[in-house]
Amino acid sequence: MINNMTINDFKEVVGDEYVLTSKEELLSYSYDSTAGVDPVVPKLVVKPGSTEEVSKVIKIANQEGINIIPRGAGSNLCGGTIPVKNSVVVVLTRMNKILEIDEENLTATVEAGVITVDVHNAVEEKGLFYPPDPGSMKVSTIGGNIAECAGGLRGLKYGVTKDYIMGLEIVLPTGEIIEVGGKTVKNVTGYDLPKLYTGSEGTLGIVTKAILKLIPKPDTHKSMMAIFDELDGAAETISNIISNKVVPVTLEIMDKVTIETVEDFAEIGLPTDAEAILLIEVDGIEEVVERDAKKVIKICEEHGARQVKLAKTAEERDDIWAARRSALSALARMKPTTILEDATVPRSNIPDMIRGVNEIAKKYDLQIGTFGHAGDGNLHPTILTDERDKEEMEKVHKAVEEIFDIALELDGTLSGEHGIGIAKASFMAKELGEDGLQALRNIKYSLDPKGLLNPHKLIGDGSDE
Amino acid sequence: MINNMTINDFKEVVGDEYVLTSKEELLSYSYDSTAGVDPVVPKLVVKPGSTEEVSKVIKIANQEGINIIPRGAGSNLCGGTIPVKNSVVVVLTRMNKILEIDEENLTATVEAGVITVDVHNAVEEKGLFYPPDPGSMKVSTIGGNIAECAGGLRGLKYGVTKDYIMGLEIVLPTGEIIEVGGKTVKNVTGYDLPKLYTGSEGTLGIVTKAILKLIPKPDTHKSMMAIFDELDGAAETISNIISNKVVPVTLEIMDKVTIETVEDFAEIGLPTDAEAILLIEVDGIEEVVERDAKKVIKICEEHGARQVKLAKTAEERDDIWAARRSALSALARMKPTTILEDATVPRSNIPDMIRGVNEIAKKYDLQIGTFGHAGDGNLHPTILTDERDKEEMEKVHKAVEEIFDIALELDGTLSGEHGIGIAKASFMAKELGEDGLQALRNIKYSLDPKGLLNPHKLIGDGSDE
Repeated sequence: MINNMTINDFKEVVGDEYVLTSKEELLSYSYDSTAGVDPVVPKLVVKPGSTEEVSKVIKIANQEGINIIPRGAGSNLCGGTIPVKNSVVVVLTRMNKILEIDEENLTATVEAGVITVDVHNAVEEKGLFYPPDPGSMKVSTIGGNIAECAGGLRGLKYGVTKDYIMGLEIVLPTGEIIEVGGKTVKNVTGYDLPKLYTGSEGTLGIVTKAILKLIPKPDTHKSMMAIFDELDGAAETISNIISNKVVPVTLEIMDKVTIETVEDFAEIGLPTDAEAILLIEVDGIEEVVERDAKKVIKICEEHGARQVKLAKTAEERDDIWAARRSALSALARMKPTTILEDATVPRSNIPDMIRGVNEIAKKYDLQIGTFGHAGDGNLHPTILTDERDKEEMEKVHKAVEEIFDIALELDGTLSGEHGIGIAKASFMAKELGEDGLQALRNIKYSLDPKGLLNPHKLIGDGSDE
Repeated sequence: MINNMTINDFKEVVGDEYVLTSKEELLSYSYDSTAGVDPVVPKLVVKPGSTEEVSKVIKIANQEGINIIPRGAGSNLCGGTIPVKNSVVVVLTRMNKILEIDEENLTATVEAGVITVDVHNAVEEKGLFYPPDPGSMKVSTIGGNIAECAGGLRGLKYGVTKDYIMGLEIVLPTGEIIEVGGKTVKNVTGYDLPKLYTGSEGTLGIVTKAILKLIPKPDTHKSMMAIFDELDGAAETISNIISNKVVPVTLEIMDKVTIETVEDFAEIGLPTDAEAILLIEVDGIEEVVERDAKKVIKICEEHGARQVKLAKTAEERDDIWAARRSALSALARMKPTTILEDATVPRSNIPDMIRGVNEIAKKYDLQIGTFGHAGDGNLHPTILTDERDKEEMEKVHKAVEEIFDIALELDGTLSGEHGIGIAKASFMAKELGEDGLQALRNIKYSLDPKGLLNPHKLIGDGSDE
């Protein structure tokens, strides 16, 4: 129970100024970056400054039966940090130090609250590279990236957050501090807790520190934009690039709705009559980049690209990526509410997926723009709506469910990189079956017997009280 | 309980000929490839032919409280498939089909019992590549590779089994069949069970099917052998190759004891006065391979290599790798018993680790040869002994424990790729702490409440009866 005594206990651990209790302060932790999810005001916000403080905070919460909502920047898109009624939000942003960059072992050891782009900058200064680049990387924390297993534009070639987590310091739901994994490239000592915790959405404990894998920074890169009159030509191009042994760092698609909206917004000369645009970047050493770029251009042309633009200068490269980067904001300004999905399918099923989304849009008379990481099948169908329009929102919910159904029919998954959170928790059994979901719940409660860590998220289970 | 009725139940599921009960047959499943571990004869061996049969077998075992020992080829080196008294060994080798090679999505779907090298051959025919190459790949099964998270020579550049498991079909310890992961490159729907099960050593269920990630087959490769008078020169070379942005596919080391033993055995002209040899292979496209090989040779020479041999023909390449491949068998023929460890440290601590092992050898007057995957810090100190010599075996056990202690002091891990099994289970708390080990046990029993799946392995806990 949260009363003045508990509040004082928390204050004793973290210091008075790091326990927030005013209505205004609590309100600003009642929501995150997710649209279409109702805010819930927590009872308290606590900002620990060390792993030991996190441990003590969790122990108090355990004793008092208070739910714990771990949070970084709150930039997730699945309602992953929406509080429940009887809860304390534990904010990790004070723990934002890069503790070490180990150039010999190619690792960085960082606290959970460090901002993603700060890691990028610090390691790139030393000629190293931390590839995961979620859209929110300028505000998101590494802890949040780990909780959600964040992806990004560079996932096709370099993988996602999970692929770069070598070791973790974790405060368990019962307050004990454990360290798992480490700086060794290989480690089979016990179940792989670093991987289990990456993507566990704060339901199994609080990650306080991480050992990140780094790689050498690629020498150079080349960016291209290919314009297609036919969606199928774009889709065939995607498969053909990869089966021709070129793995671009980035291989993005924008559909007609997205192209029109971006052009209307940014006026950068996109062809609004095209059915699809592919945005492609290859990287590596000079010779390989030259060779790969030539191959990509040839494959695009062979599959009906009307035009392939190769960026010759840094400015031209920026222009290409400005189109992609403005996709979400351009779509978002069309309507008050933007529901961004991330249903993901095997690469070969992308054209069927895009066509399916278009049919759903027609069926429910909704505006849906689709863009995303075509190379890894991770699409972002984006529904433009207004959450005050109850009638339309009902259609939106039906459309979202049908988008999930199509993705699963096409051997896909509910979420490629945004996470399940509360937004998709009720759909879990569709993909995993009741037995699969039960296995997840068994794991959850084996580590968190009182179910205090981020209730309702991911496994769709838990108490408010 | 196993009696005639239970035996008949198993026979009804898998067919009479696939239930083994004779003393001779049971004996041959009482041990695996691990030295220094006592054999235990199981009550029964059952060979199911399908996932449904595995599920039924597990359900019978559950009902009767019989321990279940999942097994492929039994080529593991940690006692991972040694039975307990009241147990049925469930052998997966009948389920050995490659179900699909999907060239568009770069995946192979295979049954658990398929032999690793059969996967290599089948996908390479299509210009694709499945990198994990454990030493036992000609006999080991993919299911066993998954259970142990097998590594191999190509781990430095391409990673280990875990990095290639996209989806699994699993029979849970209570008999339910679940499918997790799939053909999508990105998937954050729920805890990452494919990664949790990879390396779980058969303690959480039986993997029956896997979706493997494939990559394009590298165009070409070049192999080199560098001879060093000083161990430090070899160690500095390892770090320098990688910090110079060359990631060799393979970067192996052999120490003086190993060199002498191999030369004595194979007479291939190795310099027995050298302190260390590095064996290096780079792969990729022609231009990159040329460039990388030149860089490697230069770095070797700069760090005191007496000689660097570059293989100019396929035969010369074979000669280089014959030296490495014969290391274990050469060492093994010196003494009746070969205790092969795989303590692993961060790359930068390799010289300290090798020196530490040498000191332990001197202290206990033991013959220890060290070779292994230097590039990823995964060393194989190999103790040559005779298990009939009780006095020496006591020294061996002490030496092994001290090797673990040094590895952990040097920020390393008990096992890089061989697994924990029963061989190292009693050392787990040294690395994970009691709280960490308890977290693993909590997960284990949440999925396997009766503790029937591969007791004693990994978490060092379980009943014989």
